[in-house]
Amino acid sequence: MEQNRKKLYTVGIDIGGTNTVFGIVDEQGHILSHDGIKTKDYPDINVYADTVAGHLRSLIEAAGGIELINGIGVGAPNANYYTGQIEQAPNLPWKGTVPLARMLRERLTLPVTLTNDANAAALGEMTYGVARGMKDFIMITLGTGVGSGIVINGRLVYGHDGFAGELGHVIVRRGGRLCGCGRRGCLETYCSATGIVRTVHEMLSSTDTPSLLRDIPLDKVTSKDIYDAAEQGDKLALEIFRFTGTVLGEAFADFIAFSSPEAIVLFGGLAKAGEYIMAPIREAMDANVMSIYKGKTRLLTSALKDSDAAVLGASALAW
Amino acid sequence: MEQNRKKLYTVGIDIGGTNTVFGIVDEQGHILSHDGIKTKDYPDINVYADTVAGHLRSLIEAAGGIELINGIGVGAPNANYYTGQIEQAPNLPWKGTVPLARMLRERLTLPVTLTNDANAAALGEMTYGVARGMKDFIMITLGTGVGSGIVINGRLVYGHDGFAGELGHVIVRRGGRLCGCGRRGCLETYCSATGIVRTVHEMLSSTDTPSLLRDIPLDKVTSKDIYDAAEQGDKLALEIFRFTGTVLGEAFADFIAFSSPEAIVLFGGLAKAGEYIMAPIREAMDANVMSIYKGKTRLLTSALKDSDAAVLGASALAW
Repeated sequence: MEQNRKKLYTVGIDIGGTNTVFGIVDEQGHILSHDGIKTKDYPDINVYADTVAGHLRSLIEAAGGIELINGIGVGAPNANYYTGQIEQAPNLPWKGTVPLARMLRERLTLPVTLTNDANAAALGEMTYGVARGMKDFIMITLGTGVGSGIVINGRLVYGHDGFAGELGHVIVRRGGRLCGCGRRGCLETYCSATGIVRTVHEMLSSTDTPSLLRDIPLDKVTSKDIYDAAEQGDKLALEIFRFTGTVLGEAFADFIAFSSPEAIVLFGGLAKAGEYIMAPIREAMDANVMSIYKGKTRLLTSALKDSDAAVLGASALAW
Repeated sequence: MEQNRKKLYTVGIDIGGTNTVFGIVDEQGHILSHDGIKTKDYPDINVYADTVAGHLRSLIEAAGGIELINGIGVGAPNANYYTGQIEQAPNLPWKGTVPLARMLRERLTLPVTLTNDANAAALGEMTYGVARGMKDFIMITLGTGVGSGIVINGRLVYGHDGFAGELGHVIVRRGGRLCGCGRRGCLETYCSATGIVRTVHEMLSSTDTPSLLRDIPLDKVTSKDIYDAAEQGDKLALEIFRFTGTVLGEAFADFIAFSSPEAIVLFGGLAKAGEYIMAPIREAMDANVMSIYKGKTRLLTSALKDSDAAVLGASALAW
């Protein structure tokens, strides 16, 4: 009897450099309850795992007990789906390789699956968001970096080693801007939150177009400032969005030649700039895509609330 | 009884602009028997299908009868796996959309599956060649054009519309050489048989390096001539291979960021230039790939005989 009872919930855990957030999620993507801790407060991975497990036990008990939980999904930087490990994550407090799936499984006696943040975001959209029912789409996360999760034939693409889908590190300008990865001209150096600020610096110094952005100290400019300036008709701000969107749209045209997705779904701060960024992306995609693909791939923005997306994405792993 | 008997063979049909070749193939990739007709002699698709079916009936009878045949696979330009149709193929005699899978199925009462040439080549390598046992690899065919067949999670990638995997049309030089597809800078314009001849023209006119290639009329130069010159230590010929290999290796580094394949497998004339082309590809791949992928993706050349590969690839569809 017990074994056949339908599981109603999954647990989603999102691990970031600053915070770890987790929640209990139902099949419709409603977050029943959630909680969090400061990742940085736990330099010892065993204490960290104990603490997360302790908090989760309370949430699971309140939700009706472990019998109702299908499993645990974890989204984390540098997480490897195949091994269940976090491997050399520069922004997390633990060095080397951390077998987190095993550690949580031992503490909570539930199946645990790990993947990186962008893959979790793709699963979240496929399970609860705008990609529901899609078998072929690409998720692009525009944040501090540019991440991607690629879905083909209804499954996430992990590649032979678990590290597929680093589209933020496709070279879009050979010999271009130096990237944190050590190479030059990566998509991320133009289209991440820091990439667009580099564009502000370049445009402010290479033109004398008057701009509201000139009134902000250079090291203080954010994507939000560029958006606010664009809202007031600031020419340079509009030009910055146009350049950034064009670089993205050109890259998307090449991604389409690879997997011919039904949609490309955007998530993150830059995606919220609306038509300022979407219009140039769409135009560059159309202008650069092969004719057999023209007008076929939809450009969408995530339907999930920012505050919920990470936990939802992680929880989607566990269905 | 009859239904449970093990099927021993498949039929492979390769349709080219000039010739159509077909054969009966066993599970080890031995071609039991083969035959062919001139595609161009059959401008009427019904007469073409009747003729192919007639020839195949004889081969099938000689192989022991239809009960031993698992199915028919067809490789053809612009063939769509989902619809079983050939759609607007510029080099074939039939205009518009040709429902070839249905036409052959009706005539031979066997299941018929269609795909494009490069996808068939990938299946051929996976079934009988160097990619046996691989779940994630990319096939690159270097011929008159540059084609590709992408295998992920053990399955060919078709995308939402059946047209995925046009890596010959990824833009490698923005604003670069004009391509037959109407756009500029496609990989194919540098690395196809005609692309490398364009490089000969460029290098002969932009340098005055002495070269054996200067003795050949410009419109007569072939890949073979460049190879022969390289064999004699011709500096310009070596430089041409180096340039072509570098463009390929740079592109491969980006393909790896997409699907992290176990191998990239090369097939076609250029692949036969051996280390003249393989060394610069390998160097450019290594120099341009993200560090997490470094040294992981093998660069291989096809193990199938040129004359057999197309029929073998098509036959692999039908297992």
